Amino acid sequence: MGEPIVSEIRVISFGLGPIGSEVARVAASKSNMRLVGAVDIDPSKVGRTVEEVTGAPSEVIVSSSLEEALQNTEADLILHTTSSFLEVVKPQIESAIEKGLSVVSTCEELSYPWRTYPGLATELDMKAKEANVRILGTGVNPGFVMDAFPLTVTTVCQKVDRIHIERVVDAGGRRLQLQRKVGAGLTVEEFRQLVATGNVRHVGLPESAWMIIDAMGWECKDFEESIEPIVAEREILAAIGNIQPGQVAGVRQTIRAYGRDIEKLVLDLKMYVGADEPVDHIQIWGIPDLDLRFDGGVHGDRATASIVVNAASVLMNLPPGLRTMLDVMPLRFRS
Amino acid sequence: MGEPIVSEIRVISFGLGPIGSEVARVAASKSNMRLVGAVDIDPSKVGRTVEEVTGAPSEVIVSSSLEEALQNTEADLILHTTSSFLEVVKPQIESAIEKGLSVVSTCEELSYPWRTYPGLATELDMKAKEANVRILGTGVNPGFVMDAFPLTVTTVCQKVDRIHIERVVDAGGRRLQLQRKVGAGLTVEEFRQLVATGNVRHVGLPESAWMIIDAMGWECKDFEESIEPIVAEREILAAIGNIQPGQVAGVRQTIRAYGRDIEKLVLDLKMYVGADEPVDHIQIWGIPDLDLRFDGGVHGDRATASIVVNAASVLMNLPPGLRTMLDVMPLRFRS
Repeated sequence: MGEPIVSEIRVISFGLGPIGSEVARVAASKSNMRLVGAVDIDPSKVGRTVEEVTGAPSEVIVSSSLEEALQNTEADLILHTTSSFLEVVKPQIESAIEKGLSVVSTCEELSYPWRTYPGLATELDMKAKEANVRILGTGVNPGFVMDAFPLTVTTVCQKVDRIHIERVVDAGGRRLQLQRKVGAGLTVEEFRQLVATGNVRHVGLPESAWMIIDAMGWECKDFEESIEPIVAEREILAAIGNIQPGQVAGVRQTIRAYGRDIEKLVLDLKMYVGADEPVDHIQIWGIPDLDLRFDGGVHGDRATASIVVNAASVLMNLPPGLRTMLDVMPLRFRS
Repeated sequence: MGEPIVSEIRVISFGLGPIGSEVARVAASKSNMRLVGAVDIDPSKVGRTVEEVTGAPSEVIVSSSLEEALQNTEADLILHTTSSFLEVVKPQIESAIEKGLSVVSTCEELSYPWRTYPGLATELDMKAKEANVRILGTGVNPGFVMDAFPLTVTTVCQKVDRIHIERVVDAGGRRLQLQRKVGAGLTVEEFRQLVATGNVRHVGLPESAWMIIDAMGWECKDFEESIEPIVAEREILAAIGNIQPGQVAGVRQTIRAYGRDIEKLVLDLKMYVGADEPVDHIQIWGIPDLDLRFDGGVHGDRATASIVVNAASVLMNLPPGLRTMLDVMPLRFRS
C-alpha cells in the first residue's frame, strides 16, 4: 500500500530487568521482528533461555556480553534497557555502533541529548553516521506522553502560544522500584536530602522540555525546575510499607519555561502512592485551543515496552545518525 | 539537531473557497514556505491579489489555471482544495504531476484510496513515482481525528483488540455549507431521500475505516455503514434558519467493522446543529486499555488548514508516489 518495505528486524535484548523483560516479550510477539540474542550482566540470568528469564517464548540463551551474543548470530538492532544516564550507556551504545548495530534505548538522557549533552550527542551522531546505523532514546516519558505526543497534537494548530502538560502516575500500582524512586515512605527531611544529592528525581523531564522548546522554535534560554514532596494526608496502604500521614507519598516535579518573559511551557509530573485519578492531560493555547486527556493515564511500563518496539520499525527507515522522537513522529506544528 | 534539512517549499494554492483561503493564510504564515501562486476558477477572484481574496498577506495574483500560474514562477507543491471526489480531482492532480509538482489535497476520497479506488490509486502512484513527486490526501477528517491520530495513540499498546472513535461536531458553529451538508432543517423524509441519492453523507468515513483496518492488520473483509438523521427535540436557533422540533438537526454516520465475527472498529460521527458538547473521543481496548478525549472537540476548519500545511513539510521528505497519512505519521502499533 505504498509504504516502504521493512524486512524482518533481527533484535538483541540488551538488559533483562523488569522493563527489558517486558520489551523482550513485546519484541517476540511482532511479525516483523526476530529475537536473535539477549544480554544481561546478572550471573543468575546468563546461560538460561530468554523464556526462563523473561517469559517471552524464545529458546535463545542469555549471554553475558554483546560480543558473546554475536558469536552465534547476526543482528540489526539492540533493544537497550540498562540505565537512565547517558554517561553510563555511552560505552554500551558505542560498542553496538562498532558492531554495526542500531539501538533503541530507554536511557532517559538519550531521548533528547542535544541540549543537555551536546558534545556526547554530536559524538554519537557522527559515529552512528560513519557506521550507517541509527540510535534512538525513547519510552513513555521522556519520549511520548510529555513531549513527542503533545507535539503531534499541535499538528491541528495554526498557532501555538502555550503548552501545559500534566502527568499523574499512581506509583502504588507500579513496581516497588518506582515507589522507592519517588521517595514513598520517607520523611520530608529525608526526601529533601535525597533531592539535594540528586537521588530523588524523574530523569528526562529537562529533555522533554528542550524537545518541545526546540520543535516549537521558542526563544527560551533556560527554564525553572522544581522537585517537591507530595505528603500523605491519610494513611496509604502500599507494597513498600504503609505510608503514615505526614510522610512522603511521592514526588512532584515541575518545569516552567518562559520565552520573552511569557510562560510558554509547563511540564507538571506527579508520581505518588495513592494517586486516585491517574491522568495525562495536555492543554494547548493557540488557534485553536485544545484540551486533551487520557482518563486513567497511560500505564508507564506497558507503554514504554510498546513504544520502544514500535519505534524500532520506524527507526530502521530513517537516515543514519543519532535520531530523536522528532524524527520518528515528524508531523507537528511548524513555525 | 539531526533532522533532515528542508529548504523553502514554494507552494501554489489551488482552490480559494473558505477552506482554500484558510489554507493560503496558514501557508503564508510559515517560515519554510513561500506562496508563489494561486488558482481558482471563479471569475470574480481571478486577477485580484491573494490578499484581496483570502486575507493572506500576499501580492500574488490569482490565476484561472495552473498553467497560467506557472507562467511567471516555479513551484514545488500545490495545496489543493477543490472537491471531495477522486474522479473530479484526478485530472487536476495529474496535471500537477505532469508539471513536476507534489500535491497535498483535502480531497476526502484521496486520503486512503487503496481500497475504495485501487485502480485510480495505482495509476496516480505510478505517475507520481515517474515524475518524482509526492501526492497526499489529508485534513481533519478523514486524515487525522478518526484515523491517523488514533493510530498514533496505539503506539503505546502491546496489543490492540478493538477501537471505538466518536466525533461530535456542532454544525451550528460552522459554515452554512456544512449545515446544508448535514441536512439541517430538512424533514426526516427529505433527509432519507437525499441519503438514498448519496447527497447527505460525510465523504471519507470508509477511507478512515480502511486505513485503520489495514494498519492494524485486521481481517475485516467489509463493514456496515449507516446514515441516520439526528432529529431536533426542541427548537434550535441556526444561521441556516431555525430548526423546529421533529425536523432534522444533522446526521449520524456510523461504520462497524468485524474481524472473524468480532467487532473490531466503530467509527461514530455525529454532525448536527445544536450539539452542546462537541468532542473527539477515542477508546482502545487492548494492553493497556486507553480512553482519550478532546473536550470541546477539534475544530474542523481550523484543523484541516493546519494539517494540510504542516503535512506538506513532512511529505517533501518522503519517497515519491501516492502517500497516505500512514507514511506521514508512521509510528503506531505494529502487529
